[in-house]
Amino acid sequence: MNIEMIDAAKARIGRFVRRTPLLSSPFLDEVAGRRVFVKAECLQHTGSFKYRGAKSAITALGAKELKSGVIAFSSGNHAQGVALAAREAGARAVIIMPGDAPAVKIDNTRRLGAEVVLYDRETEDRDEIGGKLADQEGLTLIKPYDNAEVIAGQGTTGLEIAQQAEEAGISGADVLVCCGGGGLTSGIALALQARAAGLRARTVEPVDFDDVARSLATGCVQTNKRKSGTLCDAIVTPQPGALTFPIMSALCGPGLAVTDDACLRAMALAFERLRIVLEPGGAAALAAALFQGDEIQGDAVIVVATGGNVDRAVFETALAGMPAGQ
Amino acid sequence: MNIEMIDAAKARIGRFVRRTPLLSSPFLDEVAGRRVFVKAECLQHTGSFKYRGAKSAITALGAKELKSGVIAFSSGNHAQGVALAAREAGARAVIIMPGDAPAVKIDNTRRLGAEVVLYDRETEDRDEIGGKLADQEGLTLIKPYDNAEVIAGQGTTGLEIAQQAEEAGISGADVLVCCGGGGLTSGIALALQARAAGLRARTVEPVDFDDVARSLATGCVQTNKRKSGTLCDAIVTPQPGALTFPIMSALCGPGLAVTDDACLRAMALAFERLRIVLEPGGAAALAAALFQGDEIQGDAVIVVATGGNVDRAVFETALAGMPAGQ
Repeated sequence: MNIEMIDAAKARIGRFVRRTPLLSSPFLDEVAGRRVFVKAECLQHTGSFKYRGAKSAITALGAKELKSGVIAFSSGNHAQGVALAAREAGARAVIIMPGDAPAVKIDNTRRLGAEVVLYDRETEDRDEIGGKLADQEGLTLIKPYDNAEVIAGQGTTGLEIAQQAEEAGISGADVLVCCGGGGLTSGIALALQARAAGLRARTVEPVDFDDVARSLATGCVQTNKRKSGTLCDAIVTPQPGALTFPIMSALCGPGLAVTDDACLRAMALAFERLRIVLEPGGAAALAAALFQGDEIQGDAVIVVATGGNVDRAVFETALAGMPAGQ
Repeated sequence: MNIEMIDAAKARIGRFVRRTPLLSSPFLDEVAGRRVFVKAECLQHTGSFKYRGAKSAITALGAKELKSGVIAFSSGNHAQGVALAAREAGARAVIIMPGDAPAVKIDNTRRLGAEVVLYDRETEDRDEIGGKLADQEGLTLIKPYDNAEVIAGQGTTGLEIAQQAEEAGISGADVLVCCGGGGLTSGIALALQARAAGLRARTVEPVDFDDVARSLATGCVQTNKRKSGTLCDAIVTPQPGALTFPIMSALCGPGLAVTDDACLRAMALAFERLRIVLEPGGAAALAAALFQGDEIQGDAVIVVATGGNVDRAVFETALAGMPAGQ
């Protein structure tokens, strides 16, 4: 993995992906005690950054692979990204999804033309199911993070952050990234290393699912004891990726962990102050910026708001926590 | 008013205003039966396009006027725009607001450093109150739409739409604009006339408050019988502006009118499919695009989503109308 691969991905996908805005609000700056800049990837096509990586991987395939089709496993956002990118390429897409994924994500994936196969997150192994189907039907597996072209595609987010930070006059800051397997974080870290040396990528995960933070702290891969049980379903993974961990280990600052409650409060503030919709996992980095400021350095912080595919009930829970009269 | 004034406004305010994205979703295209592009001005500073006009007017003031300060009357969005632009200029701002404006707008205006004076929308005349205060304290009145520099500032939205439509390959389309006094609509209409001749501005207002549509249809200024009683408080005005009506009359297509219920449904779809937060008045144009397609021409439509400053209770009402399981 290197910056040339990210530049190449940008050349392939640049005219399809949305250059998402870097938002801010004086009210959020007040809460955080420093300037807060939010890269709103919830406004990306399909509602999350995952479209970048999927588009990068699928535009890198040959004609024969496209003709057979692709397969992916995902709690929802990668699924939608792959489904749309495959449809745009005229390719078949089969998506393996956990049965407890938000209904809206399963429904959207189907409506984007993909075939959805559900599995049980507690008792079944998605890798095994996906691998078997790929073999049987000649499908190319698009892994959600342990795929170099996916990482390169996510890295285009980092190219934009480098440029937008310069436009905003930010030369040094932590860049907090909601982190599952590390595809987005490692892509951004590589892009920042090459294009914005004063910016440092850092992971944000749910408490009890902070495998990446613990892996970074100890220097070797750590796993999570639990497989489910957080509202941040989008960023729950068993352990850091084989491709992503060495990159994060070399380039990232210490990882952070946030509670579900902090994510819900961040969602409410994003609703009120930025007028964007975030899902809990997509609000984790903002939650860290707003409520765990003592773990961050500098007078500015950049946050990647990674996704906005949230069930109405969960969003209402976030709004219900707002002060009365708001 | 002419395009040179809009270009001049852009030169003054271009580096301060946010170039808001033009969003889209295949799911919205499906509902509308044509491609729908949403100019998301809810993502503008202070949560609405009003910051553009306020910034334009205040950056056009002389040193003496800035030293005395400015005054504005507004149901909320113009108030916040003026408050922020005044604070950025180090100028005093007094804002006359209706007592029934959403609590969040009154609170935000105060927190942006302005002095807020409340009045009763049914029994008092805001123009009289504002005029008296302006005289007594030497404040410069920044009218919400009948001010050439305000119209020029709002017109910068039209410059961006012309450019973004070209990037998206749209050469001919209706551009639907949520309309109160017509400042934004007339600014956009002037910009499109000069820079995107195939795009035509059209107003969207609440049913029973469609003074502009009726004025356009009859060729002379019509008023509304009611002063309040719609969720779309942001776009309720007694009649079209003296400066704005001649421009709209010369350049705009027929006006449209939408129900509060249609605006709530549009808010829910914007939440689900675009991950943006809209207030009812800011969703009126989207409502027309989605649910009144037989009144629109062409295979694409552009919508200006003008604002996102909404009380939590109203937003929850919009979400409650969504189909179950979403």
